[in-house]
Amino acid sequence: MQVLHMNKGNGDTSYAKNSTVQSKIISVGKQIMEEAVLEMLCGNAIELESMGIADLGCSSGPNTLSVISAIMDTVEAANRHLGRRLVSECRVLLNDLYSNDFNEIFMSLPAFYKRLEEETGLGFGSCFISGVPGSFYGRLFPSNTLHFVHSSSSLHWLSQVPAGLQTNALKHVNKGKLYISQSSPRCVMDAYSLQFQNDFSLFIKSRSQELVPGGRMFLSFMGRRSADPTTEDSCYQWELLAQAIMSLAREGRIEEEKVDSFNAPYYAPFTEEIKEEIQKEGSFTIDRFEAFEIDWDGGAVTDIHTPQGKLLVGQRVAKTIRAVVESMLQSQLGIQPDVMDDLFIRYADIVGTHLSKSRTKYVNMVMVLIKKG
Amino acid sequence: MQVLHMNKGNGDTSYAKNSTVQSKIISVGKQIMEEAVLEMLCGNAIELESMGIADLGCSSGPNTLSVISAIMDTVEAANRHLGRRLVSECRVLLNDLYSNDFNEIFMSLPAFYKRLEEETGLGFGSCFISGVPGSFYGRLFPSNTLHFVHSSSSLHWLSQVPAGLQTNALKHVNKGKLYISQSSPRCVMDAYSLQFQNDFSLFIKSRSQELVPGGRMFLSFMGRRSADPTTEDSCYQWELLAQAIMSLAREGRIEEEKVDSFNAPYYAPFTEEIKEEIQKEGSFTIDRFEAFEIDWDGGAVTDIHTPQGKLLVGQRVAKTIRAVVESMLQSQLGIQPDVMDDLFIRYADIVGTHLSKSRTKYVNMVMVLIKKG
Repeated sequence: MQVLHMNKGNGDTSYAKNSTVQSKIISVGKQIMEEAVLEMLCGNAIELESMGIADLGCSSGPNTLSVISAIMDTVEAANRHLGRRLVSECRVLLNDLYSNDFNEIFMSLPAFYKRLEEETGLGFGSCFISGVPGSFYGRLFPSNTLHFVHSSSSLHWLSQVPAGLQTNALKHVNKGKLYISQSSPRCVMDAYSLQFQNDFSLFIKSRSQELVPGGRMFLSFMGRRSADPTTEDSCYQWELLAQAIMSLAREGRIEEEKVDSFNAPYYAPFTEEIKEEIQKEGSFTIDRFEAFEIDWDGGAVTDIHTPQGKLLVGQRVAKTIRAVVESMLQSQLGIQPDVMDDLFIRYADIVGTHLSKSRTKYVNMVMVLIKKG
Repeated sequence: MQVLHMNKGNGDTSYAKNSTVQSKIISVGKQIMEEAVLEMLCGNAIELESMGIADLGCSSGPNTLSVISAIMDTVEAANRHLGRRLVSECRVLLNDLYSNDFNEIFMSLPAFYKRLEEETGLGFGSCFISGVPGSFYGRLFPSNTLHFVHSSSSLHWLSQVPAGLQTNALKHVNKGKLYISQSSPRCVMDAYSLQFQNDFSLFIKSRSQELVPGGRMFLSFMGRRSADPTTEDSCYQWELLAQAIMSLAREGRIEEEKVDSFNAPYYAPFTEEIKEEIQKEGSFTIDRFEAFEIDWDGGAVTDIHTPQGKLLVGQRVAKTIRAVVESMLQSQLGIQPDVMDDLFIRYADIVGTHLSKSRTKYVNMVMVLIKKG
């Protein structure tokens, strides 16, 4: 939990420069999110002295404030639609793990406040942005203080490597793999599923204490439409990364023993697994639930059937994955900087070749939950 | 406002490693602060669902969380004293300018929460810490949400270089100086005093909107007991820094024209100036008001009358000043890294020599204000 963070700063391998997939995911769900905000504000036509808005797993980079912009614009649109000010002040709470690059976000706030004031007439006096570091698998905010929760591209990260796979007996059971694979024994899938259930139910329970009745949650994260966790759509990016890592391990440049005992704290849950946890906890009704296919490279227009196109797409995918997993690979597999560079050159090549034959996509789940009254 | 920040990180010239004077100031006022918290909680014996605590100008380093620790310990002591839980959850809001090193603070929170839980039994569930970047010369928090405000070693920083000295006519009027000096014309003193009045009244007004009735503010910052702003106690650290800078300017290593047009956004106000602004605004009663003398090096025991002692004290003072003003000197005077090093070697020497002859001290004002009902 302490080590997982997106690549910091603004450099070539930074998350800020390589987050187009996450940006695509945000834009795909944007309309649903805006409708959720509008319905909450206009449906009840409540006047809120102070509206609490939280973005969980906000990361840092252009996506962070673009989400907040979209929410604020929608609040302003609701005000205009109803011809009066529904919300007098907004408390915007940006959450991510302790190691997230909050400095980067904070430095861009003066320009953000300026734009907000110019475009919507909302000044600093009515929008208060703060950073709340900590794990969303637990309480983050005081009781009954949130009205709208947003979380995008975050809930597929588990709180830890599946607990079941950290026992001595099962430590090496998923040899040469980073995640659930077709060759993984049943106990690997069970351990992942159980860790997801524990984490996600804790997430739902924590938020149910923080949201006011009628408050809404917009959640968007990787998942799968099949009960089988080994379908390409739900795990193949990890399968190919394991291939690249194992090719370096065979050359002695990465410790194979470390790869054998490592399992990524990631899980793409099945639709029914998600719904079951929400229903079991009982505080939320499911207002909307949809699945979208997302291209591995965010859907840029490139002809993959030329050698150059294949290379380009492979590199683009490798960069977006690197920006997200590098800190984890470094700390868990002890990969050195030069080996890291080679790893992602190989990965780009493997991904390009794969995508030229089979257009595997991510499946992104989007849902709106309403806190019961 | 965007450029002033303490030296970041953990290195030799960092603020985190050179904030013993500010630490001394905190310890001198600690008892008064704790009494203010206790009186607020026990005097009214109110039960607070959620207590809002803000630290304005929190900086980053060991002092940041030591202040919060002291406040939390006092809240816990009040609970014990009254035999019941007065406060069920604390919202701790850490404020500083956008460029402050919030990442550094956030990385130390897991250990802080752990200690808090062990020592006071307060878990993460009841203490929510967030970072709120922005200038305290304006609104930072929603209305009526704070119960206790702490600010130490921050309010002597103005929001900007005195506006009056930025006009073309007065731009070069304080030649060779960085702050009010005995040689400064009257208009310099007036411009500083006016800027302080504007800033401090805006500070008081903003906080009066954010604090609940009966809420308390503990403020601690540099000031002076004399109406004359040119007494050694209120300005001599700047006088000596100007000497060191001008000696490098004469060698062509710092642009003299830049020194002539620069004035530090700092002001050590007279007791009566402070009281007047508080009374003029009208929302607060002054509960306590005291002045403490603080050694320039924080009061470490060193015999300054030996050559080595003189050197040591000078270096210690130079380091504490450098950690605070370096970012400002760099951006405003364009001082290069190697010149910066030489500057503070000269400054250490000048300070050591001065202190061996005259034990000039800072005067630190400490006050407790109560928001009227």
